[in-house]
Amino acid sequence: MFSVMAHRVTFFPRNVSVEIPDGETVLDAAIAAGVQINSVCGGEGTCGKCQIIVEGPHKAERGPLDDQVWSRGYRLACRTLPEGDLSVFVPEESQVRVGKIMTSYRDLVVHPAGPLVDTLVAEMSAPSIEDHLADMERLRCALERPDLDIALPALRELPVALRSGNWKVMAKVARAGTGDCIIKVRPAVNGCHDLGAAVDIGTTTVAIELIDLHTGRTVAQASDYNRQLVAGEDVLARIAYAEDRGVGRLQELIIGTINQLVSDLCALRNAQEDLTCQIRADEIMALSVGGNTAMIHMLLGLDPRNIRYEPYIPITHGPPVLKASELGLNIHPLAPVYCIPGRASYVGGDVTADVLLSGMHRKDELALLIDVGTNGEVVLGNRDWMLTCSTSAGPAFEGGEVSCGMRATAGAIERVRMVDQNIDYTTIGRTAPRGICGSGLIDLVAQMFLNGHLDRKGHIQAEGSELARSTGKVVKFVIHTGEREIAITDDDIANIIRTKAAIYAGCSVLIDSVGMSFNDVDRVYIAGGFGGHIDIGNAQLIGLLPDLPRERFEFIGNGSLGGAKMCLISEESRKEAAGIFDAMTYLDLSSSHEFFDQYSSALFLPHTDMDQFPSVRRMLER
Amino acid sequence: MFSVMAHRVTFFPRNVSVEIPDGETVLDAAIAAGVQINSVCGGEGTCGKCQIIVEGPHKAERGPLDDQVWSRGYRLACRTLPEGDLSVFVPEESQVRVGKIMTSYRDLVVHPAGPLVDTLVAEMSAPSIEDHLADMERLRCALERPDLDIALPALRELPVALRSGNWKVMAKVARAGTGDCIIKVRPAVNGCHDLGAAVDIGTTTVAIELIDLHTGRTVAQASDYNRQLVAGEDVLARIAYAEDRGVGRLQELIIGTINQLVSDLCALRNAQEDLTCQIRADEIMALSVGGNTAMIHMLLGLDPRNIRYEPYIPITHGPPVLKASELGLNIHPLAPVYCIPGRASYVGGDVTADVLLSGMHRKDELALLIDVGTNGEVVLGNRDWMLTCSTSAGPAFEGGEVSCGMRATAGAIERVRMVDQNIDYTTIGRTAPRGICGSGLIDLVAQMFLNGHLDRKGHIQAEGSELARSTGKVVKFVIHTGEREIAITDDDIANIIRTKAAIYAGCSVLIDSVGMSFNDVDRVYIAGGFGGHIDIGNAQLIGLLPDLPRERFEFIGNGSLGGAKMCLISEESRKEAAGIFDAMTYLDLSSSHEFFDQYSSALFLPHTDMDQFPSVRRMLER
Repeated sequence: MFSVMAHRVTFFPRNVSVEIPDGETVLDAAIAAGVQINSVCGGEGTCGKCQIIVEGPHKAERGPLDDQVWSRGYRLACRTLPEGDLSVFVPEESQVRVGKIMTSYRDLVVHPAGPLVDTLVAEMSAPSIEDHLADMERLRCALERPDLDIALPALRELPVALRSGNWKVMAKVARAGTGDCIIKVRPAVNGCHDLGAAVDIGTTTVAIELIDLHTGRTVAQASDYNRQLVAGEDVLARIAYAEDRGVGRLQELIIGTINQLVSDLCALRNAQEDLTCQIRADEIMALSVGGNTAMIHMLLGLDPRNIRYEPYIPITHGPPVLKASELGLNIHPLAPVYCIPGRASYVGGDVTADVLLSGMHRKDELALLIDVGTNGEVVLGNRDWMLTCSTSAGPAFEGGEVSCGMRATAGAIERVRMVDQNIDYTTIGRTAPRGICGSGLIDLVAQMFLNGHLDRKGHIQAEGSELARSTGKVVKFVIHTGEREIAITDDDIANIIRTKAAIYAGCSVLIDSVGMSFNDVDRVYIAGGFGGHIDIGNAQLIGLLPDLPRERFEFIGNGSLGGAKMCLISEESRKEAAGIFDAMTYLDLSSSHEFFDQYSSALFLPHTDMDQFPSVRRMLER
Repeated sequence: MFSVMAHRVTFFPRNVSVEIPDGETVLDAAIAAGVQINSVCGGEGTCGKCQIIVEGPHKAERGPLDDQVWSRGYRLACRTLPEGDLSVFVPEESQVRVGKIMTSYRDLVVHPAGPLVDTLVAEMSAPSIEDHLADMERLRCALERPDLDIALPALRELPVALRSGNWKVMAKVARAGTGDCIIKVRPAVNGCHDLGAAVDIGTTTVAIELIDLHTGRTVAQASDYNRQLVAGEDVLARIAYAEDRGVGRLQELIIGTINQLVSDLCALRNAQEDLTCQIRADEIMALSVGGNTAMIHMLLGLDPRNIRYEPYIPITHGPPVLKASELGLNIHPLAPVYCIPGRASYVGGDVTADVLLSGMHRKDELALLIDVGTNGEVVLGNRDWMLTCSTSAGPAFEGGEVSCGMRATAGAIERVRMVDQNIDYTTIGRTAPRGICGSGLIDLVAQMFLNGHLDRKGHIQAEGSELARSTGKVVKFVIHTGEREIAITDDDIANIIRTKAAIYAGCSVLIDSVGMSFNDVDRVYIAGGFGGHIDIGNAQLIGLLPDLPRERFEFIGNGSLGGAKMCLISEESRKEAAGIFDAMTYLDLSSSHEFFDQYSSALFLPHTDMDQFPSVRRMLER
């Protein structure tokens, strides 16, 4: 009918090219080419993180870029339209960097029993003229499961397996919620153990483990950034992207991330010594997934839009067990894919997994669980009851909305100590500092406050400080000087205070709603992907964590990954996950006056009500 | 790497072309081009039915063609290799002819209840901040089915259906053996009824009906030859073809046949008046299939080879309920495909369907059911017990192995009467005779015998006959002279006698095995696709049917199609089909001395033991 003009865009330093139709942006081209460019706002032109240098005919809007940056030739990828073939350089600071990402979690207490895919061995007599039962019915009979379902591909391979195995076979049985199903049959021989994978789909990071389904042992680990980052940094930006362009592209991106990790896992596993056999990706027979509600929707290609609008209703809390091939996952096509159920749009399966890993749902003691992520989900309860809420804390502790913020990868300042005007810090990987990650920010704000560089409202006290600088109206506090200055501003600190206030307020609302106080809490579990464990004392100093004795706190690490592993290898864990879903009551804080009051009271260091932080008061008094 | 020489073959009169690699035969080309050529032996070069006329460079083996035919330029499609581009004429007698095929069956006594796909209406309250259950869980709750499975595509369309339907929707629930599953959700509106299809997959003919799942009414019917005919006329030839070239091609051919019929059905249905809406093939929500064990294997792409070799073990008696998309059927991709279970390799789901339609399994009276097809399956029993066997009768009554034999289509002689030397006959469609179908052959042999043209061994009595001709050693009896002579030979009659003897012997073995006699049989059901009902008296004259009063016989027609319809619309019928499978005991006659003795005794007209045929004796004496 008509032809659309196309432009070729080549990205450096990776030197990959892609052709896009006229009217699409350089960010669209980057997504199409698989080039990872930071895009916190999801292409809305507001975050200013997708800076590139363009060579060739183009039209660009300036967005939030300042004079200096603009005049040095920087453009925003999401606001640049090619008008011919382009070369695009993606500077280091705009690239999504891959580094070692923390994926550890508390040791599991669960042993394999009823994994998502089980191996049943069946031995039967050979058929004869008198005993003429068909192959499938003979197998069912030998397994004493007369109604066991069998998938068509397994049915097709059955006659050869039975006869070449001399009527002794192993049947791989997928435990799919509504019924078991044989997905593979082969002659019963000794060989490699069956493998499954557990995956945590974080909004930022995807972590995966390859697990021996018989021993429960983790045989390889890998992690990477979620490729969806090109479509926005947080859940809301991703949903907006899905509304705009369909969820299909986001599904492709997360499936692509997982498939790459699966391929990496297999390579890692096959590089190990003492192996009796190599494995292929299609020998991974099951996948268990932890993730927030939006991530699970995108994994399944379910339109997430209603998550974003009141009354915030997801399509499902816990999807049915699906087949890998339905999702495009490059493992065994019939491998069951199980997603841990979540309680609400903003308390997802990742939180259920945290609870599962903590074990708080099995104990009498009153526990408070805090997942310090973008949403800051909180769970309060014990074996008899559980309350949960999400605090919309914001991404300050994950490197977002803080000018010097970054994720917990190489070069991030993760620890800060301060004595008067002297700052001491350590970076991840002990490299030159590139920014400050969550644990570093908590330390920094706490130490600045303790040393008098911040007042209780979080304003930088510039007067008499060697580290504070004023430029026009902006006051900043410099942590590191040199080629790349690292400093924090009043605005940054305000964002950090808003984040910590939201989390603490969420905890307070839950505690108050059952007529208790923080002192009644026997244990506080901290979950989340911090670069290192956060310093409890500093977190209490800024009023993020309640003022309780240190020994009541316990870090459980990446609960989503740990919980996914538990559900992969244990039927009991899957039942417990369903039970946690049933047992949890969700409080929506979005229109809660109580929450707003608590939040407002927490917008101070550590809190308006110093009685809630007696040990901090004592420390400040010293 | 290397290039393969290709030859273009063009078929006339249809004028379709196809390119095939060097080394493939003209029959291969015909299969690739979708040109239907008779091939009784499945390309083995033995049946001589795939005669064609070739123009162009080729190499041909003569096979069973005689001098005269060869010299007139006829070649065998399966034994002709192109050596360049060819034109091929397919003469009328080598074409598989499409005509009106009998697909009727006895009236059903079953009303719709629990069809394979059911429509459930769910009404629910809209969600709110306080009532924040997710869409899927809300639907399950409204349906009072908290564990009801839901397919991914239905889950994807759920949020829009719920909201556009103002929280009132219709869920289409597939009843798949091991669990129900929602396969489609749409706003609850009044509209067309849901449709399903029942299909009988015969080795020769495929018949299909489009059925309103609410009323049980058949809204359109169609039938066609099974395209697998190009790969051999009977089950054993098809299995040999599958062993040789894989079952995949046979699956394609039967799926292609059904897809074409589905398309025809929709066109037929949409051409009717008084329609409130037109339908598309993907609105057919369920398929119920009757067919013999080999046909079901080929439908599913299951290797049928073990059906052919002792101990004759199929892969399954009754496959799991599958999805249409797994098989490549062009109906709703998630439509459940149910196959009626069969008792053994040679007593398939078509026989279970016969029993279901006859209702013999629900009655106290002793019934004998005979399916007069290639295998001649027999069932004896009542509500308490059933015995069954297959008699390997051969295709004589379906037009095979008889020189003048043909299927029951236009031009087939279906009725023969004879007084002395005068023959009177009628053809299907009242056209010029082209051959004789099963019912006509039974009449002819009976009337020849009654009028002294045959002795009890089945030899033609040429002496003094005006209708008998001798050519060398061959004696033939001419029914019709003219441009196309129709005659029957001693060999033909021997084949017919072998067929009737096998069926009668099968009945006898079953009767004897329970210590009864034919006189104990209260009712005889005749199933099968004869052109018209066979004449009971003539069938008794030749010893095909037992010598019982006429009123004990009942024709049920195409039981496979009728039974498939019952199972489509009624859960009770599907349970009964499973019950019939459980209740039937299969006797394998392949190595039975008892059967061999009975068979030998029956190789006379009507039988060695005339005491078994007292009324025939009286008639002969008259």
